[in-house]
Amino acid sequence: MTFGERILERAECLAAFTEDEGRLTRTYLTPMHRKAGEQIAAWMREAGMQASFDALGNVVGRYEGATADAPVVLTGSHMDTVVDAGRYDGVFGILTAIECVADLAKRGKRLPFAFEVAAFGDEEGVRFGVTMIGSRAFAGRFRPEMLEARDKDGVSLREALTAFGGNPDEIPGLARKGIAAFVESHIEQGPVLLDDNLSVGVVTSIAGSYRVKAKVTGLAGHAGTVRMPGRRDALMAAAEMALAVEAHCAAQPHELVGTVGKLAVAGGGATNVIPGSVEFTVDLRSGDDAVRRRALRELEDKLFAVAKRRSVALEWNPFFELQAMPCDPRMQAALAASIDAQGIRVRHLPSGAGHDAMELAHVAPMAMLFVRCGNGGISHHPSETLAASDADIATSVLLHFLESYVP
Amino acid sequence: MTFGERILERAECLAAFTEDEGRLTRTYLTPMHRKAGEQIAAWMREAGMQASFDALGNVVGRYEGATADAPVVLTGSHMDTVVDAGRYDGVFGILTAIECVADLAKRGKRLPFAFEVAAFGDEEGVRFGVTMIGSRAFAGRFRPEMLEARDKDGVSLREALTAFGGNPDEIPGLARKGIAAFVESHIEQGPVLLDDNLSVGVVTSIAGSYRVKAKVTGLAGHAGTVRMPGRRDALMAAAEMALAVEAHCAAQPHELVGTVGKLAVAGGGATNVIPGSVEFTVDLRSGDDAVRRRALRELEDKLFAVAKRRSVALEWNPFFELQAMPCDPRMQAALAASIDAQGIRVRHLPSGAGHDAMELAHVAPMAMLFVRCGNGGISHHPSETLAASDADIATSVLLHFLESYVP
Repeated sequence: MTFGERILERAECLAAFTEDEGRLTRTYLTPMHRKAGEQIAAWMREAGMQASFDALGNVVGRYEGATADAPVVLTGSHMDTVVDAGRYDGVFGILTAIECVADLAKRGKRLPFAFEVAAFGDEEGVRFGVTMIGSRAFAGRFRPEMLEARDKDGVSLREALTAFGGNPDEIPGLARKGIAAFVESHIEQGPVLLDDNLSVGVVTSIAGSYRVKAKVTGLAGHAGTVRMPGRRDALMAAAEMALAVEAHCAAQPHELVGTVGKLAVAGGGATNVIPGSVEFTVDLRSGDDAVRRRALRELEDKLFAVAKRRSVALEWNPFFELQAMPCDPRMQAALAASIDAQGIRVRHLPSGAGHDAMELAHVAPMAMLFVRCGNGGISHHPSETLAASDADIATSVLLHFLESYVP
Repeated sequence: MTFGERILERAECLAAFTEDEGRLTRTYLTPMHRKAGEQIAAWMREAGMQASFDALGNVVGRYEGATADAPVVLTGSHMDTVVDAGRYDGVFGILTAIECVADLAKRGKRLPFAFEVAAFGDEEGVRFGVTMIGSRAFAGRFRPEMLEARDKDGVSLREALTAFGGNPDEIPGLARKGIAAFVESHIEQGPVLLDDNLSVGVVTSIAGSYRVKAKVTGLAGHAGTVRMPGRRDALMAAAEMALAVEAHCAAQPHELVGTVGKLAVAGGGATNVIPGSVEFTVDLRSGDDAVRRRALRELEDKLFAVAKRRSVALEWNPFFELQAMPCDPRMQAALAASIDAQGIRVRHLPSGAGHDAMELAHVAPMAMLFVRCGNGGISHHPSETLAASDADIATSVLLHFLESYVP
């Protein structure tokens, strides 16, 4: 059995640990989290690692280096999922690393660094609304007030963690200092590699983003009695603004993506009433922070111009900003060399989605390897696919990287 | 006190009969319906009419004609309201008619027809989702299955009517045969008379309409990872379709109005997810059925072209059609003459909204008199306004019409 075949088999096995009948949903500090973590720890031990749950419910495996004082290279990804998830988002980065260790151990090969593999308990933030809990703690960026976040049943993170057997008091001690490097393998979750017919690619940076809440206030009216020229229709204004976001980003297709993910008429609207108020969101991302900031300013000008022309009010509240996180150039070069060593053309691409690697980048040189996502690039959805051959190549690249990288 | 001043004072009095604290909401077969009806009946009697509730909770007043065998001319409008309503929609048509009778009675003047004034218990359909219940019954178009419609608490129309003291078995007997004419006065609920600086106008026809439910299905995706060119964003497609409806109707501003009143991302959407499915409604109206039918066909072509270009699926379901109801030409001419007699320029205009008169038009020649709506033409809203001077002129017009019309 190849690396790739075993990875797909094990991803299938993990997909059975789900809270929801008939679909994959696995959230933080639940019985299914425990089962998945126990299975992952068992595979880690079988591969030749020491492995156990830590104080936050992460599972960490360690393959000792050639010498006792060797530095540490860390890899990892998350074992939680979104609601109704695909099978590979997160777990691929764990399973591919276990394959590498199993192969090294079989050959009796030790590296000039200890290699640790983390299976983070939470990245998606589904249960408590706090994302990347595991990797935040590793980066020393977990804030105590996060323990008071509550799930939909009113259970706090602190309570759930204690019940799980974790220990809130030990979280500060999880902060990792002196990590030589962090590398994360992940399914691309987009169509770039698929469109370019490539199995793997080197991530250049993890995109920064803005999130904006917008509210348009016009004037409600009777659908039959208010003539078209006098209308101040909030929905028509919002529709024009949403299309302006799309057009602005489509004009810079390699630099920007922009999405209106929510859009709702206040109160749900009525068939025979001109909408008086509409709220929508804008999600704007770029690997280049300067491009993203300029785009926000230009979009603001365009959207307020629409509001003025249509005599509606626009409230515009950017409420979230995440700066782009560039990947370490030397590690990118090393990953590129390992891809080249497989006879594959090296493709560099940004990551539009956030990943645990963004957190670890605060404390270590960071890089990411993307593996091709099938089926049009769909992810966060049960129709996410990964080919065994691509999983196999990605594992060979990571193994080559580990055997050649000098921290 | 003028007709107009008394009408405004009485509308204010009726606005106090509300189910909702701090706003006007009065629905069918409720205690507030009873109080409003009792007050209206008292004013009718005071004006010189016989008045009582009928089997459906309508209040009907009658001012006898000069002879016992005189024909009947009917007027009326509704005493129920929408949620958070204005003060004049509906009740104006009742109050102006009461003023006319009071003036005739004071002068001891009898007409060559009996004059009846109906205060319909339901026109808006808020409580049971069935509109124009009172006028439907007068037109002999109330269908027995409507008795089984239920309100949000599960109470059927039959149960509520019986509890109110009405009688479901007597509904067929409410059908009026041999009515010589029906004339309804109503606030315009739009800005046409306001823009033209006129107190009153003659309605040419009540607009016909289509209502359409549309559903766009694209492909959901990650807001950060799916590049702009490859997207099949259901919301962007729906936004473009909605703007196409607006542009198509705006190009024929005197003939068509079109409204997208509801538009919702399936499941509410998420800031970081490209919408995969969006539903919206289209309300399309015209006084000219041929114009409206052609517009629907042309819009269908445009919207399916948008769907094709954006690679999304469009489901398009026209689920409701109401044909335009032209007003009786001879009655229009008589109303025009009565307006001219006040020294006012005669303005003809269509009604974009539906009214009780649509139902009565099935059994009698029908006409409508519109009175100017202030404040930009806002109606179905607490900021609806009516000037006492306009109410006064409209009452004088109706009185002149009654004294000169020959059935």
